[in-house]
Amino acid sequence: MKSVKERLSALRAAMAQANCDAYIMPTSDPHASEYVPAHFTTWEYFSGFYCENANLVVTADEAAMWVDGRFFGAADTALQGTGIESMHMGVKGVPTVDAWLKEHLGKGKVLGCCAQTMPLSQSRKLEKTCESVGASLQDLPQIIDDVWGEDRPALPATPVWTLDVKYSGRTAKEKLAILRGKLAEKTCTAMVITRLDSIAWLLNLRASDVEDTPYALAFCYVDEEHAVLFLDESRVPQSVKEELGRAKVELRAYEAMPSYLAAVQKDETVLIDAESLNASLYHAVCGNPHYTVVEADDPIVMLKAIKNDTELSCTRQAHLNDAVAMVRFQMELEECLKNKKSLRETDIDTILHKYRSSNENFLTESFPTIAAYGANAAMMHYAPKVGSDAAIENKGFLLVDSGATYYDGTTDITRTYPVGEVSEEEKLAYTRVLRAHIDIAMAVWLEGATGGELDMIARQPLWRHMIDYRCGTGHGVAHVGTVHEDPQQIRPHNKIVFEPGMVITDEPGIYEEGIVGVRIENELLCTQAGENQYGKFLRFEPITYVPIAVSCVLLDELTREEKAWLNEYHAQVLEKLSLLLREEECAWLREKCAAI
Amino acid sequence: MKSVKERLSALRAAMAQANCDAYIMPTSDPHASEYVPAHFTTWEYFSGFYCENANLVVTADEAAMWVDGRFFGAADTALQGTGIESMHMGVKGVPTVDAWLKEHLGKGKVLGCCAQTMPLSQSRKLEKTCESVGASLQDLPQIIDDVWGEDRPALPATPVWTLDVKYSGRTAKEKLAILRGKLAEKTCTAMVITRLDSIAWLLNLRASDVEDTPYALAFCYVDEEHAVLFLDESRVPQSVKEELGRAKVELRAYEAMPSYLAAVQKDETVLIDAESLNASLYHAVCGNPHYTVVEADDPIVMLKAIKNDTELSCTRQAHLNDAVAMVRFQMELEECLKNKKSLRETDIDTILHKYRSSNENFLTESFPTIAAYGANAAMMHYAPKVGSDAAIENKGFLLVDSGATYYDGTTDITRTYPVGEVSEEEKLAYTRVLRAHIDIAMAVWLEGATGGELDMIARQPLWRHMIDYRCGTGHGVAHVGTVHEDPQQIRPHNKIVFEPGMVITDEPGIYEEGIVGVRIENELLCTQAGENQYGKFLRFEPITYVPIAVSCVLLDELTREEKAWLNEYHAQVLEKLSLLLREEECAWLREKCAAI
Repeated sequence: MKSVKERLSALRAAMAQANCDAYIMPTSDPHASEYVPAHFTTWEYFSGFYCENANLVVTADEAAMWVDGRFFGAADTALQGTGIESMHMGVKGVPTVDAWLKEHLGKGKVLGCCAQTMPLSQSRKLEKTCESVGASLQDLPQIIDDVWGEDRPALPATPVWTLDVKYSGRTAKEKLAILRGKLAEKTCTAMVITRLDSIAWLLNLRASDVEDTPYALAFCYVDEEHAVLFLDESRVPQSVKEELGRAKVELRAYEAMPSYLAAVQKDETVLIDAESLNASLYHAVCGNPHYTVVEADDPIVMLKAIKNDTELSCTRQAHLNDAVAMVRFQMELEECLKNKKSLRETDIDTILHKYRSSNENFLTESFPTIAAYGANAAMMHYAPKVGSDAAIENKGFLLVDSGATYYDGTTDITRTYPVGEVSEEEKLAYTRVLRAHIDIAMAVWLEGATGGELDMIARQPLWRHMIDYRCGTGHGVAHVGTVHEDPQQIRPHNKIVFEPGMVITDEPGIYEEGIVGVRIENELLCTQAGENQYGKFLRFEPITYVPIAVSCVLLDELTREEKAWLNEYHAQVLEKLSLLLREEECAWLREKCAAI
Repeated sequence: MKSVKERLSALRAAMAQANCDAYIMPTSDPHASEYVPAHFTTWEYFSGFYCENANLVVTADEAAMWVDGRFFGAADTALQGTGIESMHMGVKGVPTVDAWLKEHLGKGKVLGCCAQTMPLSQSRKLEKTCESVGASLQDLPQIIDDVWGEDRPALPATPVWTLDVKYSGRTAKEKLAILRGKLAEKTCTAMVITRLDSIAWLLNLRASDVEDTPYALAFCYVDEEHAVLFLDESRVPQSVKEELGRAKVELRAYEAMPSYLAAVQKDETVLIDAESLNASLYHAVCGNPHYTVVEADDPIVMLKAIKNDTELSCTRQAHLNDAVAMVRFQMELEECLKNKKSLRETDIDTILHKYRSSNENFLTESFPTIAAYGANAAMMHYAPKVGSDAAIENKGFLLVDSGATYYDGTTDITRTYPVGEVSEEEKLAYTRVLRAHIDIAMAVWLEGATGGELDMIARQPLWRHMIDYRCGTGHGVAHVGTVHEDPQQIRPHNKIVFEPGMVITDEPGIYEEGIVGVRIENELLCTQAGENQYGKFLRFEPITYVPIAVSCVLLDELTREEKAWLNEYHAQVLEKLSLLLREEECAWLREKCAAI
């Protein structure tokens, strides 16, 4: 319960003791996770500020924290008075972490880190930085252990369960065989797997170790014959043990992987992924002369990004159930507004949770609900808090970005609701965002197109007016997993080629600081459009079916094709949801889905 | 004057004599040119078929020629009866050159080539291919020399002249200083330059050695102090010699470069570009122990792609003069059609030449005029020939793709003219192509976008209907130079980032074999659109100002923005050309430029 200043001063004392001149804390864990269990949020403990992309560096008399564009404002506020400088990544005139370290380190100086929570790729870059000025990078985890000590949250240990094959489409045994095939293609005989989403996919394993993300903290080792799952046995019910046994997966303690790797006696060509393997495990691998190391992308990342038919049909169902909750939520919202009932931003999550959690397959929200009224919506990652959240009045827009994980799938949806009178400026912003959304949704392309190429389509309706959104147009969504899935993205210069079976969000937006925020988001499935003399064409198909508000659309601004898409989409919404809704709900829906 | 079969049989005899099992002839010359002087068109001599992107391979009993999508039909026709198989590059089921060679070569076999006319990059690939099956690549130029012998055209030797600084914007001396700066950035002290367009740009040198391309066949060597131009002195007028002297450029014979490189006694770090340096010169460089080799892209390619202000204002003027010729041509065309005067495809070039060449700055056509009537226009690179060309009737479309090089610039323009009644199908094709054209022309993007990303915009109006064109959307155009300029292209997956000052064609098309061909082409200049909190935005600005036929446009298919663009464009055409045209021409133009 010490203050940030007290924590930093304790840290500096421990650093001095260990002859450590600077200490770096990236936002990572031993698994290169984007969302990290509290046990590993070192940067938050020492700065008082949590975000998903930062680097905190502390020296004897200075401290600085680099955050990306999504978190500039929040970091500036949170770091005030801590003695930590807020550094805006990528902004002209702000030194990079690398440049800053070179400035602050010198011959013989020591940069400390925790190798266990640092991806190999980052550790290599830091080693180079240190070398260039005669300094060295050292693995000094005990500094953190000593200072954080008893305050530090324990490792999570929620019950482990397996996702039934009726939801996953393939057993762990089948997936292991597929992975071994991929390893053989690269002439590898073994692999060290550290990504939680990769392990969850491979073994159909789930838990609740990470907030809003149904994964278990574990490592995995696969060779040609068997596999080892490093996960405390006490967490694993008998039925899961049996299932793992059938796939020849042996259980060992979470902490046992380094010693296991050190003790392997058989010659293996082991695949490691420098982006996700932590530096500590890398040294364990390199220390064993039986290993020949092959560096390559984790092959599971692409395997799981391309969903199988079972996953897709389950996901479709999850989206329909989610849509029912969204319809009921919107009806209640409209009722509240009509009755002038007091409504605050934080109430939105409560209402949404009520409808979503009433579905028997509901597991958890897939991320903290963003309910942002008026100008708050211009903050891309706004999180309303009880006590400081805005009251929803009957004018302008309410932006709601939310989602859930069900046994049959994970969802992510944003709607921007006109909650009363809407200005011409707001209508124009809404219409332009809608155009961007539709233009991606109705895109068709010859196979081979990348996320960077597709991104260009989404931004034209905004870029033609020199408006941009400072984020990607869309990200992947895992199956009963994390809401941000690699590697496909619709984002400028992204190099991943879209393939049938990939799921992606389509969420362009306009964010005018202090004025207006609009985002419209569906999830889309990449699918075949057809084949002819020119080749194979691909397109997207929405899997989110929830009405999109049209009362605030400037209809003249839409093209004929965009209008046709919207009418066809709403016809589909009506058709798909009618079977799942009560009669009065259907009547409401018919109005929302009327052709324009 | 032997037949192709006789030539091949003589080649095979010479190959047998030299223990050569296969011989490969790419479409190249010692300068990696796209357009090649007749002295180097080996593949044409032995196949009877000329095109700009092919590989001819001959073995003792087989022969095959790979051509790209633009030349499929023409190659199929031309190669009939020659015993040479027509191979369609990139088509499923058709083996690549590489796969075919592996199939046909084996241990101890010899693949012959002429290293002087093969870029190093290709030679390296072929070496690998050969090695993989135990064969070897050998430089056997004398096989070609012996068989081609006296039939072979001499090396071109047209008079050399320099492009005045009022057209080029920079003297050779200034450009050499810029180049030396670029070399220093890469810690290089010298460079071997083989690309004719690079040499032409660097020294403001022009000639007529290559048909339709005003370049001189030469090599160039630049070190920190001086430069050597390998070009026969007899071709160089005194005034040019003096100019070169002022830039410290020494003259040597065209053939003298290998011996010069071998004799350099000073230690140099020399930049070579594996894509353009020929394999023979590479061996000369590597044979001199004074050289340390650095491989990098020819830096001149990017320097010349970004035009300076003088080049741009000259090019704009050239385009206006070209537009006057285009207007007069179209008026004469319409007059002929009205009077039912017999008109054939080959007449088009004659009329165009008459108007273009009447401009005092006219130098040459920039490529052979493509005038394609009706279904002929579906052949992307159709070249009408006297005797076999089509008569133009009063229905359907006439596609005319043409251009010229003037002292002040090079042009490339395509218009598709409705020459009578046009079917609904033709109108739809025309309208879709026009949309694709306009969508690129009105694109706006945040700096950093590549040609591959922009290409996506052009193809959407066609891809949404599963129609594609098997070529890029646009290519660069050199300043008073070749009509196809590196490195910028609007083409799927192109990685070059667009920069202000680059010139690009915008020429989407629809090519339905045997039915209809439509292409609409302007040249565009990449320019600043503005800067705001999101960054720097870029856009295109047309530099071609010639009316686009609207009578065959299905107006309902165009978006509001597309119509607005077209009206604004025609208003600009009228404004810019009115000053250059006679009154009756202006009256005609006003009709063509009326708002839709």
